[in-house]
Amino acid sequence: MKPKKPNILVVNDDGITAPGIKALMHAMKDIGRVVVVAPDSPQSGMGHAITIGKPLRLDKIELYEDIETYRCSGTPVDCVKLAVNSVFKGNKPDLCVSGINHGLNNSINVLYSGTMSAAVEGAIESIPSIGFSLDDYTMQANFYPCIKFVKEIALQVLTHSLPVGTVLNVNFPAGDKIKGIKICRQANAKWAEEFDERVDPHERPYYWLTGVFQNNDNGEDTDVWALEHGYASVVPTQFDMTAHHAIPVLNSWNFNV
Amino acid sequence: MKPKKPNILVVNDDGITAPGIKALMHAMKDIGRVVVVAPDSPQSGMGHAITIGKPLRLDKIELYEDIETYRCSGTPVDCVKLAVNSVFKGNKPDLCVSGINHGLNNSINVLYSGTMSAAVEGAIESIPSIGFSLDDYTMQANFYPCIKFVKEIALQVLTHSLPVGTVLNVNFPAGDKIKGIKICRQANAKWAEEFDERVDPHERPYYWLTGVFQNNDNGEDTDVWALEHGYASVVPTQFDMTAHHAIPVLNSWNFNV
Repeated sequence: MKPKKPNILVVNDDGITAPGIKALMHAMKDIGRVVVVAPDSPQSGMGHAITIGKPLRLDKIELYEDIETYRCSGTPVDCVKLAVNSVFKGNKPDLCVSGINHGLNNSINVLYSGTMSAAVEGAIESIPSIGFSLDDYTMQANFYPCIKFVKEIALQVLTHSLPVGTVLNVNFPAGDKIKGIKICRQANAKWAEEFDERVDPHERPYYWLTGVFQNNDNGEDTDVWALEHGYASVVPTQFDMTAHHAIPVLNSWNFNV
Repeated sequence: MKPKKPNILVVNDDGITAPGIKALMHAMKDIGRVVVVAPDSPQSGMGHAITIGKPLRLDKIELYEDIETYRCSGTPVDCVKLAVNSVFKGNKPDLCVSGINHGLNNSINVLYSGTMSAAVEGAIESIPSIGFSLDDYTMQANFYPCIKFVKEIALQVLTHSLPVGTVLNVNFPAGDKIKGIKICRQANAKWAEEFDERVDPHERPYYWLTGVFQNNDNGEDTDVWALEHGYASVVPTQFDMTAHHAIPVLNSWNFNV
Protein backbone atom coordinates (compact mmCIF):
# COMPACT_ATOMS: atom_id res chain seq x y z
CA MET A 1 0.00 0.00 0.00
CA LYS A 2 1.28 3.40 -0.95
CA PRO A 3 1.70 5.61 2.16
CA LYS A 4 -0.70 8.53 2.40
CA LYS A 5 0.70 11.81 1.13
CA PRO A 6 1.21 14.27 3.99
CA ASN A 7 -1.01 17.35 4.12
CA ILE A 8 1.13 20.47 4.11
CA LEU A 9 -0.04 23.96 5.08
CA VAL A 10 2.00 26.72 3.41
CA VAL A 11 1.83 30.24 4.84
CA ASN A 12 3.99 33.37 4.74
CA ASP A 13 4.10 37.02 5.71
CA ASP A 14 5.14 38.63 2.42
CA GLY A 15 1.71 37.97 0.97
CA ILE A 16 0.16 35.42 -1.32
CA THR A 17 1.83 36.64 -4.53
CA ALA A 18 5.40 36.80 -3.19
CA PRO A 19 8.01 34.78 -5.12
CA GLY A 20 9.13 33.22 -1.83
CA ILE A 21 5.83 31.46 -1.18
CA LYS A 22 5.71 30.25 -4.78
CA ALA A 23 9.14 28.68 -4.36
CA LEU A 24 8.02 27.04 -1.11
CA MET A 25 4.71 25.67 -2.40
CA HIS A 26 6.39 24.16 -5.45
CA ALA A 27 9.02 22.51 -3.28
CA MET A 28 6.30 21.10 -1.02
CA LYS A 29 4.30 19.74 -3.99
CA ASP A 30 7.04 17.13 -4.43
CA ILE A 31 6.44 15.96 -0.86
CA GLY A 32 2.71 16.10 -0.20
CA ARG A 33 -0.69 17.66 -0.75
CA VAL A 34 -0.28 21.41 -0.46
CA VAL A 35 -2.81 23.93 0.84
CA VAL A 36 -1.83 27.60 0.78
CA VAL A 37 -3.41 30.11 3.18
CA ALA A 38 -1.62 33.43 2.99
CA PRO A 39 -2.19 37.14 3.64
CA ASP A 40 -3.65 39.27 0.85
CA SER A 41 -0.98 41.94 1.47
CA PRO A 42 2.56 42.15 2.88
CA GLN A 43 2.65 41.57 6.64
CA SER A 44 6.35 41.90 7.41
CA GLY A 45 7.07 42.87 10.99
CA MET A 46 3.62 41.78 12.21
CA GLY A 47 5.13 39.44 14.78
CA HIS A 48 2.54 37.38 16.62
CA ALA A 49 -0.28 39.88 16.01
CA ILE A 50 -3.83 38.59 15.75
CA THR A 51 -6.94 40.41 14.58
CA ILE A 52 -9.42 41.04 17.38
CA GLY A 53 -11.24 44.29 16.63
CA LYS A 54 -12.47 43.51 13.15
CA PRO A 55 -13.64 40.44 11.24
CA LEU A 56 -11.51 38.44 8.82
CA ARG A 57 -12.03 37.48 5.21
CA LEU A 58 -10.94 34.12 3.84
CA ASP A 59 -11.46 33.55 0.12
CA LYS A 60 -10.65 30.46 -1.90
CA ILE A 61 -9.02 31.68 -5.09
CA GLU A 62 -7.73 30.27 -8.35
CA LEU A 63 -4.15 31.48 -8.42
CA TYR A 64 -1.73 28.59 -8.67
CA GLU A 65 -2.37 25.56 -10.87
CA ASP A 66 -3.30 22.40 -8.95
CA ILE A 67 -2.79 24.06 -5.54
CA GLU A 68 -5.69 24.75 -3.18
CA THR A 69 -5.20 28.41 -2.32
CA TYR A 70 -6.86 30.78 0.17
CA ARG A 71 -6.33 34.51 0.52
CA CYS A 72 -6.77 35.92 4.02
CA SER A 73 -7.26 39.53 5.10
CA GLY A 74 -5.50 39.00 8.41
CA THR A 75 -2.03 38.54 9.85
CA PRO A 76 0.19 35.49 9.33
CA VAL A 77 -0.97 34.09 12.70
CA ASP A 78 -4.61 34.66 11.70
CA CYS A 79 -3.88 32.65 8.52
CA VAL A 80 -2.73 29.65 10.56
CA LYS A 81 -5.69 29.87 12.94
CA LEU A 82 -8.17 30.11 10.06
CA ALA A 83 -6.41 27.35 8.12
CA VAL A 84 -6.56 24.94 11.04
CA ASN A 85 -10.15 25.75 11.99
CA SER A 86 -11.93 26.68 8.78
CA VAL A 87 -9.91 25.01 6.00
CA PHE A 88 -8.58 21.81 7.58
CA LYS A 89 -11.54 21.89 10.00
CA GLY A 90 -9.72 20.28 12.89
CA ASN A 91 -8.13 17.59 10.69
CA LYS A 92 -4.72 19.05 11.35
CA PRO A 93 -2.09 19.19 8.60
CA ASP A 94 0.97 16.98 8.99
CA LEU A 95 3.33 19.88 8.45
CA CYS A 96 3.17 23.69 8.51
CA VAL A 97 5.82 25.59 6.56
CA SER A 98 6.13 29.37 6.46
CA GLY A 99 8.04 31.52 3.98
CA ILE A 100 10.29 31.49 2.19
CA ASN A 101 10.72 34.95 3.65
CA HIS A 102 12.35 37.69 1.62
CA GLY A 103 14.92 38.69 4.24
CA LEU A 104 16.54 37.05 7.27
CA ASN A 105 14.65 36.14 10.42
CA ASN A 106 17.62 35.03 12.46
CA SER A 107 18.46 36.08 16.01
CA ILE A 108 16.14 38.67 17.63
CA ASN A 109 14.15 38.93 14.37
CA VAL A 110 12.28 35.81 15.45
CA LEU A 111 10.18 38.15 17.65
CA TYR A 112 9.28 40.67 14.92
CA SER A 113 8.83 38.15 12.13
CA GLY A 114 5.38 37.29 10.81
CA THR A 115 6.96 34.32 9.03
CA MET A 116 8.25 32.82 12.25
CA SER A 117 5.15 33.76 14.24
CA ALA A 118 3.03 31.80 11.76
CA ALA A 119 5.31 28.79 12.27
CA VAL A 120 5.17 29.25 16.05
CA GLU A 121 1.37 29.31 15.87
CA GLY A 122 1.51 26.03 13.94
CA ALA A 123 3.64 24.59 16.75
CA ILE A 124 1.18 25.83 19.38
CA GLU A 125 -1.42 23.81 17.44
CA SER A 126 0.89 20.78 17.82
CA ILE A 127 1.66 20.75 14.08
CA PRO A 128 5.33 20.12 13.19
CA SER A 129 6.28 23.56 11.86
CA ILE A 130 9.18 25.30 10.14
CA GLY A 131 9.85 28.90 9.15
CA PHE A 132 12.20 29.48 6.19
CA SER A 133 13.92 32.77 5.35
CA LEU A 134 16.53 33.89 2.81
CA ASP A 135 19.06 36.69 3.19
CA ASP A 136 17.66 38.67 0.25
CA TYR A 137 14.72 41.00 0.81
CA THR A 138 14.26 41.87 -2.87
CA MET A 139 11.45 40.51 -5.03
CA GLN A 140 14.19 39.23 -7.40
CA ALA A 141 15.64 36.96 -4.69
CA ASN A 142 16.99 33.65 -6.03
CA PHE A 143 15.42 30.87 -3.99
CA TYR A 144 16.77 28.07 -6.17
CA PRO A 145 19.92 27.28 -4.14
CA CYS A 146 17.97 26.72 -0.92
CA ILE A 147 15.21 24.49 -2.31
CA LYS A 148 17.04 21.19 -1.79
CA PHE A 149 17.67 22.20 1.84
CA VAL A 150 14.04 23.21 2.30
CA LYS A 151 12.88 19.82 1.04
CA GLU A 152 15.40 17.85 3.08
CA ILE A 153 14.58 19.69 6.31
CA ALA A 154 10.83 19.24 5.69
CA LEU A 155 11.33 15.51 5.03
CA GLN A 156 13.41 15.11 8.19
CA VAL A 157 10.73 16.86 10.25
CA LEU A 158 8.04 14.63 8.73
CA THR A 159 10.18 11.58 9.57
CA HIS A 160 11.28 12.51 13.11
CA SER A 161 8.65 15.09 14.08
CA LEU A 162 9.98 17.74 16.49
CA PRO A 163 10.48 17.78 20.26
CA VAL A 164 7.24 18.88 21.98
CA GLY A 165 6.81 22.65 22.10
CA THR A 166 9.45 23.43 19.48
CA VAL A 167 9.50 24.81 15.95
CA LEU A 168 12.41 25.32 13.53
CA ASN A 169 13.72 28.72 12.49
CA VAL A 170 15.68 28.11 9.27
CA ASN A 171 17.65 30.87 7.56
CA PHE A 172 19.67 30.71 4.35
CA PRO A 173 22.57 32.85 3.20
CA ALA A 174 22.17 34.49 -0.22
CA GLY A 175 24.14 33.20 -3.18
CA ASP A 176 24.67 29.94 -5.04
CA LYS A 177 26.79 28.07 -2.53
CA ILE A 178 25.26 26.93 0.74
CA LYS A 179 27.95 24.98 2.60
CA GLY A 180 25.58 22.85 4.69
CA ILE A 181 23.32 22.97 7.74
CA LYS A 182 24.30 24.13 11.23
CA ILE A 183 22.06 23.57 14.26
CA CYS A 184 22.38 26.83 16.20
CA ARG A 185 21.16 28.94 19.05
CA GLN A 186 19.62 32.39 18.57
CA ALA A 187 22.43 34.99 18.61
CA ASN A 188 22.28 37.76 21.20
CA ALA A 189 21.73 40.65 18.81
CA LYS A 190 19.36 43.59 18.46
CA TRP A 191 18.42 46.46 16.20
CA ALA A 192 19.89 49.86 16.93
CA GLU A 193 17.03 52.08 15.86
CA GLU A 194 17.54 55.30 14.04
CA PHE A 195 14.23 56.97 13.32
CA ASP A 196 14.32 59.06 10.19
CA GLU A 197 12.40 62.19 11.26
CA ARG A 198 10.80 64.17 8.43
CA VAL A 199 8.29 67.00 8.14
CA ASP A 200 5.10 66.64 6.10
CA PRO A 201 3.68 69.34 3.77
CA HIS A 202 1.57 70.54 6.71
CA GLU A 203 4.71 71.06 8.84
CA ARG A 204 3.97 68.19 11.17
CA PRO A 205 6.76 65.69 11.94
CA TYR A 206 6.62 62.00 11.06
CA TYR A 207 9.02 59.14 11.65
CA TRP A 208 10.25 56.24 9.54
CA LEU A 209 11.58 53.28 11.47
CA THR A 210 15.06 52.33 10.29
CA GLY A 211 17.85 50.57 12.08
CA VAL A 212 21.15 48.76 12.05
CA PHE A 213 21.46 45.11 13.08
CA GLN A 214 23.94 44.84 15.94
CA ASN A 215 25.41 41.48 16.83
CA ASN A 216 26.67 41.39 20.42
CA ASP A 217 27.51 37.70 20.40
CA ASN A 218 30.91 36.21 19.52
CA GLY A 219 29.72 32.61 19.85
CA GLU A 220 30.43 30.23 16.98
CA ASP A 221 27.25 28.29 17.77
CA THR A 222 24.86 31.07 16.76
CA ASP A 223 22.67 31.59 13.69
CA VAL A 224 24.51 34.84 12.92
CA TRP A 225 27.85 33.00 12.85
CA ALA A 226 26.50 30.17 10.66
CA LEU A 227 25.00 32.57 8.09
CA GLU A 228 28.13 34.72 7.98
CA HIS A 229 30.13 31.57 7.24
CA GLY A 230 27.90 30.39 4.40
CA TYR A 231 25.79 27.82 6.24
CA ALA A 232 22.02 27.47 6.57
CA SER A 233 21.14 28.04 10.23
CA VAL A 234 18.54 25.91 11.99
CA VAL A 235 17.46 27.17 15.43
CA PRO A 236 15.07 25.02 17.45
CA THR A 237 12.72 27.63 18.89
CA GLN A 238 10.22 27.39 21.74
CA PHE A 239 7.19 29.34 22.85
CA ASP A 240 7.71 28.75 26.56
CA MET A 241 9.28 32.13 27.21
CA THR A 242 9.85 31.47 30.92
CA ALA A 243 13.36 32.45 32.04
CA HIS A 244 13.57 29.36 34.25
CA HIS A 245 17.05 30.35 35.52
CA ALA A 246 15.62 33.58 36.93
CA ILE A 247 12.98 31.93 39.14
CA PRO A 248 15.35 31.29 42.11
CA VAL A 249 16.70 34.84 41.78
CA LEU A 250 13.22 36.32 42.12
CA ASN A 251 12.35 33.94 44.93
CA SER A 252 15.25 35.42 46.91
CA TRP A 253 13.68 38.90 46.86
CA ASN A 254 11.59 40.00 49.85
CA PHE A 255 8.36 41.52 48.65
CA ASN A 256 6.89 43.74 51.37
CA VAL A 257 3.24 43.23 50.52
CA MET B 1 22.19 64.42 48.91
CA LYS B 2 18.77 63.30 47.81
CA PRO B 3 19.00 60.41 45.34
CA LYS B 4 17.95 61.20 41.79
CA LYS B 5 14.36 60.23 40.99
CA PRO B 6 14.25 57.36 38.52
CA ASN B 7 12.95 58.05 35.02
CA ILE B 8 10.02 55.76 34.27
CA LEU B 9 8.59 55.05 30.83
CA VAL B 10 4.92 54.04 30.93
CA VAL B 11 3.40 52.31 27.90
CA ASN B 12 0.39 50.08 27.20
CA ASP B 13 -1.59 48.43 24.43
CA ASP B 14 -5.13 49.48 25.36
CA GLY B 15 -4.41 53.03 24.21
CA ILE B 16 -3.52 56.29 25.89
CA THR B 17 -6.95 56.96 27.41
CA ALA B 18 -7.45 53.51 29.00
CA PRO B 19 -8.15 53.46 32.76
CA GLY B 20 -5.36 50.89 33.19
CA ILE B 21 -2.60 53.22 32.01
CA LYS B 22 -3.98 56.01 34.22
CA ALA B 23 -3.76 53.71 37.24
CA LEU B 24 -0.20 52.75 36.31
CA MET B 25 1.06 56.28 35.68
CA HIS B 26 -0.36 57.51 38.98
CA ALA B 27 1.27 54.63 40.84
CA MET B 28 4.60 55.39 39.16
CA LYS B 29 4.38 59.13 40.02
CA ASP B 30 4.98 58.14 43.65
CA ILE B 31 8.26 56.48 42.63
CA GLY B 32 9.84 58.63 39.93
CA ARG B 33 9.57 60.99 36.98
CA VAL B 34 6.98 59.57 34.61
CA VAL B 35 6.91 59.83 30.82
CA VAL B 36 3.96 58.25 29.01
CA VAL B 37 4.25 57.13 25.39
CA ALA B 38 1.18 55.16 24.35
CA PRO B 39 -0.83 54.21 21.27
CA ASP B 40 -3.55 56.54 20.06
CA SER B 41 -5.95 53.57 19.71
CA PRO B 42 -6.44 50.11 21.21
CA GLN B 43 -3.71 47.68 20.13
CA SER B 44 -4.71 44.49 21.93
CA GLY B 45 -3.38 41.35 20.28
CA MET B 46 -0.70 43.22 18.35
CA GLY B 47 2.04 41.04 19.82
CA HIS B 48 5.53 42.16 18.82
CA ALA B 49 4.35 43.90 15.64
CA ILE B 50 6.31 46.89 14.37
CA THR B 51 5.37 49.41 11.69
CA ILE B 52 7.53 49.11 8.59
CA GLY B 53 5.41 50.07 5.59
CA LYS B 54 4.19 53.46 6.75
CA PRO B 55 5.55 56.33 8.82
CA LEU B 56 4.72 56.94 12.47
CA ARG B 57 3.31 59.95 14.25
CA LEU B 58 4.43 60.96 17.71
CA ASP B 59 2.69 63.94 19.28
CA LYS B 60 3.31 65.52 22.66
CA ILE B 61 -0.11 66.19 24.14
CA GLU B 62 -1.61 67.82 27.24
CA LEU B 63 -3.73 65.05 28.68
CA TYR B 64 -2.69 64.24 32.23
CA GLU B 65 -1.71 66.90 34.74
CA ASP B 66 2.02 67.08 35.49
CA ILE B 67 2.81 64.05 33.33
CA GLU B 68 4.81 64.31 30.11
CA THR B 69 2.61 62.48 27.62
CA TYR B 70 3.07 61.41 23.99
CA ARG B 71 0.49 59.85 21.69
CA CYS B 72 1.84 57.46 19.06
CA SER B 73 0.15 56.17 15.91
CA GLY B 74 2.02 52.86 16.03
CA THR B 75 2.05 49.58 17.92
CA PRO B 76 3.09 49.14 21.56
CA VAL B 77 6.58 48.06 20.41
CA ASP B 78 6.80 51.14 18.14
CA CYS B 79 5.97 53.25 21.23
CA VAL B 80 8.95 51.85 23.12
CA LYS B 81 11.30 52.28 20.17
CA LEU B 82 10.18 55.88 19.62
CA ALA B 83 10.29 56.63 23.35
CA VAL B 84 13.87 55.40 23.67
CA ASN B 85 15.12 57.08 20.51
CA SER B 86 13.08 60.25 20.09
CA VAL B 87 11.79 61.11 23.58
CA PHE B 88 14.57 59.93 25.91
CA LYS B 89 17.05 60.36 23.02
CA GLY B 90 19.38 57.57 24.05
CA ASN B 91 19.33 58.60 27.73
CA LYS B 92 17.54 55.41 28.64
CA PRO B 93 14.83 55.36 31.30
CA ASP B 94 15.57 53.50 34.53
CA LEU B 95 12.40 51.46 34.28
CA CYS B 96 9.83 50.58 31.62
CA VAL B 97 6.36 49.55 32.80
CA SER B 98 3.55 48.45 30.52
CA GLY B 99 -0.16 48.21 31.29
CA ILE B 100 -2.05 47.83 33.43
CA ASN B 101 -3.70 45.67 30.81
CA HIS B 102 -7.46 45.19 30.84
CA GLY B 103 -7.37 41.38 30.71
CA LEU B 104 -4.90 38.64 31.59
CA ASN B 105 -1.64 38.10 29.74
CA ASN B 106 -0.58 34.95 31.51
CA SER B 107 0.61 31.73 29.90
CA ILE B 108 0.60 31.63 26.07
CA ASN B 109 -0.96 35.12 25.98
CA VAL B 110 2.56 36.49 26.44
CA LEU B 111 3.01 35.92 22.68
CA TYR B 112 -0.15 37.74 21.54
CA SER B 113 0.01 40.55 24.06
CA GLY B 114 0.98 44.04 23.01
CA THR B 115 1.41 44.88 26.71
CA MET B 116 4.04 42.21 27.21
CA SER B 117 5.68 42.83 23.83
CA ALA B 118 6.23 46.47 24.82
CA ALA B 119 7.88 45.29 28.05
CA VAL B 120 9.96 42.74 26.12
CA GLU B 121 11.10 45.52 23.78
CA GLY B 122 12.16 47.53 26.85
CA ALA B 123 14.19 44.54 27.99
CA ILE B 124 15.82 44.19 24.55
CA GLU B 125 16.88 47.81 25.06
CA SER B 126 18.47 46.71 28.38
CA ILE B 127 15.88 48.67 30.39
CA PRO B 128 14.49 46.85 33.48
CA SER B 129 10.95 46.19 32.30
CA ILE B 130 7.66 44.87 33.65
CA GLY B 131 4.29 44.14 32.07
CA PHE B 132 1.22 44.33 34.36
CA SER B 133 -2.21 42.84 33.58
CA LEU B 134 -5.46 42.41 35.50
CA ASP B 135 -8.06 39.69 35.06
CA ASP B 136 -10.80 42.14 34.05
CA TYR B 137 -11.09 43.26 30.43
CA THR B 138 -13.84 45.81 31.05
CA MET B 139 -13.28 49.55 31.07
CA GLN B 140 -14.80 49.54 34.60
CA ALA B 141 -12.02 47.30 35.93
CA ASN B 142 -11.00 48.07 39.52
CA PHE B 143 -7.22 48.52 39.55
CA TYR B 144 -7.08 49.72 43.15
CA PRO B 145 -6.35 46.35 44.85
CA CYS B 146 -3.28 45.71 42.69
CA ILE B 147 -1.64 49.14 43.00
CA LYS B 148 0.38 48.35 46.14
CA PHE B 149 1.73 45.24 44.40
CA VAL B 150 2.55 47.22 41.26
CA LYS B 151 4.53 49.74 43.32
CA GLU B 152 6.33 47.10 45.37
CA ILE B 153 7.34 45.06 42.32
CA ALA B 154 8.55 48.21 40.53
CA LEU B 155 10.58 49.24 43.59
CA GLN B 156 12.13 45.78 43.89
CA VAL B 157 13.11 45.84 40.22
CA LEU B 158 14.64 49.31 40.63
CA THR B 159 16.58 48.01 43.67
CA HIS B 160 17.77 44.65 42.31
CA SER B 161 17.46 45.20 38.55
CA LEU B 162 16.66 41.99 36.65
CA PRO B 163 18.81 39.13 35.40
CA VAL B 164 20.23 39.97 31.95
CA GLY B 165 17.81 39.24 29.11
CA THR B 166 14.73 38.93 31.30
CA VAL B 167 11.52 40.90 31.85
CA LEU B 168 8.66 40.35 34.30
CA ASN B 169 5.18 39.26 33.27
CA VAL B 170 2.92 40.19 36.21
CA ASN B 171 -0.77 39.23 36.29
CA PHE B 172 -3.35 40.01 38.96
CA PRO B 173 -6.57 38.21 39.82
CA ALA B 174 -9.71 40.34 39.85
CA GLY B 175 -11.32 41.27 43.14
CA ASP B 176 -10.39 42.96 46.40
CA LYS B 177 -8.24 40.28 47.97
CA ILE B 178 -4.87 39.44 46.43
CA LYS B 179 -3.27 36.82 48.66
CA GLY B 180 0.33 37.63 47.77
CA ILE B 181 2.94 37.13 45.03
CA LYS B 182 3.98 33.83 43.46
CA ILE B 183 7.03 33.53 41.21
CA CYS B 184 5.86 31.19 38.45
CA ARG B 185 6.58 29.60 35.12
CA GLN B 186 4.38 30.13 32.06
CA ALA B 187 1.64 27.49 32.07
CA ASN B 188 1.37 25.16 29.09
CA ALA B 189 -1.97 26.40 27.79
CA LYS B 190 -3.44 27.55 24.49
CA TRP B 191 -6.56 28.99 22.89
CA ALA B 192 -8.98 26.60 21.26
CA GLU B 193 -10.22 28.78 18.45
CA GLU B 194 -13.78 28.82 17.33
CA PHE B 195 -14.27 31.20 14.44
CA ASP B 196 -17.72 32.70 14.35
CA GLU B 197 -18.59 32.56 10.64
CA ARG B 198 -21.20 35.06 9.46
CA VAL B 199 -22.49 36.28 6.13
CA ASP B 200 -22.41 39.97 5.20
CA PRO B 201 -25.29 41.83 3.46
CA HIS B 202 -23.56 41.07 0.14
CA GLU B 203 -23.65 37.34 0.91
CA ARG B 204 -19.92 37.00 1.41
CA PRO B 205 -18.67 35.15 4.50
CA TYR B 206 -16.59 36.77 7.21
CA TYR B 207 -15.05 35.42 10.39
CA TRP B 208 -14.76 36.70 13.95
CA LEU B 209 -11.93 35.23 15.99
CA THR B 210 -13.22 33.82 19.27
CA GLY B 211 -11.83 31.10 21.48
CA VAL B 212 -11.70 29.26 24.76
CA PHE B 213 -8.60 29.27 26.95
CA GLN B 214 -7.45 25.70 27.51
CA ASN B 215 -5.05 24.93 30.33
CA ASN B 216 -3.17 21.67 29.71
CA ASP B 217 -0.88 22.03 32.71
CA ASN B 218 -1.54 20.61 36.18
CA GLY B 219 1.59 22.15 37.72
CA GLU B 220 1.21 24.15 40.92
CA ASP B 221 4.15 26.35 39.91
CA THR B 222 2.38 28.00 36.95
CA ASP B 223 0.85 31.43 36.47
CA VAL B 224 -2.53 29.86 35.76
CA TRP B 225 -2.44 28.03 39.12
CA ALA B 226 -1.37 31.15 41.04
CA LEU B 227 -4.14 33.30 39.56
CA GLU B 228 -6.79 30.62 40.11
CA HIS B 229 -5.72 30.53 43.76
CA GLY B 230 -5.91 34.29 44.31
CA TYR B 231 -2.23 35.20 43.95
CA ALA B 232 -0.49 37.70 41.69
CA SER B 233 1.70 35.72 39.28
CA VAL B 234 5.19 36.92 38.36
CA VAL B 235 6.82 35.06 35.46
CA PRO B 236 10.41 35.95 34.57
CA THR B 237 10.28 35.97 30.78
CA GLN B 238 13.09 35.88 28.23
CA PHE B 239 13.48 36.77 24.57
CA ASP B 240 16.02 34.08 23.80
CA MET B 241 13.52 31.69 22.26
CA THR B 242 16.11 28.97 21.57
CA ALA B 243 14.93 25.54 22.66
CA HIS B 244 18.39 24.67 23.95
CA HIS B 245 17.32 21.16 24.97
CA ALA B 246 16.42 20.40 21.35
CA ILE B 247 19.87 21.18 19.89
CA PRO B 248 21.35 17.71 20.62
CA VAL B 249 18.20 16.07 19.22
CA LEU B 250 18.57 17.93 15.91
CA ASN B 251 22.29 17.26 15.81
CA SER B 252 21.50 13.53 15.86
CA TRP B 253 19.58 13.79 12.56
CA ASN B 254 21.39 12.98 9.31
CA PHE B 255 20.69 15.66 6.74
CA ASN B 256 21.33 14.29 3.26
CA VAL B 257 22.41 17.53 1.62
